[in-house]
Amino acid sequence: ALREELAAFFQPKLLAGKRVLLTAGPTAEPIDPVRVITNRSSGKTGYALARAAAEAGAHVTLVSGPTALTAPRGVRRVGVQTARQMHEAVLAVAPLADVFIAVAAVADWRVVNASTQKIKKQGGNASGLPTLSFEANPDILADVAALPDGPWCVGFAAETENLAEHAEAKRRSKGIDLLVGNLAQDVMDADTTALQLFDAQGVHPMPAADKLTAARRLVAEIAARLPPRGPLTA
Amino acid sequence: ALREELAAFFQPKLLAGKRVLLTAGPTAEPIDPVRVITNRSSGKTGYALARAAAEAGAHVTLVSGPTALTAPRGVRRVGVQTARQMHEAVLAVAPLADVFIAVAAVADWRVVNASTQKIKKQGGNASGLPTLSFEANPDILADVAALPDGPWCVGFAAETENLAEHAEAKRRSKGIDLLVGNLAQDVMDADTTALQLFDAQGVHPMPAADKLTAARRLVAEIAARLPPRGPLTA
Repeated sequence: ALREELAAFFQPKLLAGKRVLLTAGPTAEPIDPVRVITNRSSGKTGYALARAAAEAGAHVTLVSGPTALTAPRGVRRVGVQTARQMHEAVLAVAPLADVFIAVAAVADWRVVNASTQKIKKQGGNASGLPTLSFEANPDILADVAALPDGPWCVGFAAETENLAEHAEAKRRSKGIDLLVGNLAQDVMDADTTALQLFDAQGVHPMPAADKLTAARRLVAEIAARLPPRGPLTA
Repeated sequence: ALREELAAFFQPKLLAGKRVLLTAGPTAEPIDPVRVITNRSSGKTGYALARAAAEAGAHVTLVSGPTALTAPRGVRRVGVQTARQMHEAVLAVAPLADVFIAVAAVADWRVVNASTQKIKKQGGNASGLPTLSFEANPDILADVAALPDGPWCVGFAAETENLAEHAEAKRRSKGIDLLVGNLAQDVMDADTTALQLFDAQGVHPMPAADKLTAARRLVAEIAARLPPRGPLTA
């Protein structure tokens, strides 16, 4: 812990005074009170990035889905379960943030006909199997990116194939400043990660590293790209 | 850690030499490589019970779905993801076990049409929403209980209402020796638990306690009910 504090102390204060808002972890969409649809996500990448941003001098708010992780020192953690809860928690503070980093693996759909009581094994239809209907969840990153005078936006894309193609498409369609791509099978619950950065200039691969080292490098890349704060305009 | 070891050392060896097989945690049924259907289960109850059984002198094998927990000292942990993998891992060793304790929150259904590639947000059908078909998973506890000369079986029932009714029905229909009931909303990811025991003699409430204390008491209740080992019969 002392070692960690020393390491934190000596990190360059690249984000001094900046307000950084992050999301991390999966979301969990109820099927019934005990069953959920969720994403395989340990939350480790998002928590490492929250820690790296705090070490770099930022005021960090972390909106987190269910994980077994504890919030890094100095980070304000807001716990949520569903994508809609995460959307609400993020949009409530996003207009005040300088940087928004969307790391959470947000469920794209929720179950429309979720049950308020546990579905019995022999319940549901005649076959004893459930019939689930879905509807789309809000797109948190796209909504933040569309805010007038909103924060500088960083997205993450976890893909299982055609990473470059999907990542660049995602960056453009959501209108975000920087997109961080990784291959999903490499990173889920792993402690190391190899990221690629996609911005208006193209693709920039980063070396493989443990998640904290990768997070610190990513913070430096973000800090280097942030626009200087201009005077307020009416 | 020293304190824990001392506490363990002084636990009565109620299960000395017994082979105890447990399941714990949720299972995760893939929708695609990143999305799963799972149960809200931290695994804490099962891991506490594995620890208590090991402290009581048993040889413990723990077949565990995905959790953030580490195996208790002296416990052999077998990690699985899906209900079918758990079924296979359990049935491979169940005939040799003296006691089987099924704590895992096993998914009752799996997705038949799971995708081998990540489903794109705008993929699936015309609306961009997935259509999932389900089929029933094997019933691990019922299959172990049906083994000839199989282990003494303990089941768990997490219910959101009508606990006594559901628990007793589950005990009878699966043909198990002891069923441990709890109210699901009280226990998911909580550190304390209030259990009720259902056996052929009726219902026996246990006092609310932290999970390790409750687990030690449950081990004592199980040990007191185990039949004496008779001579082998042909």
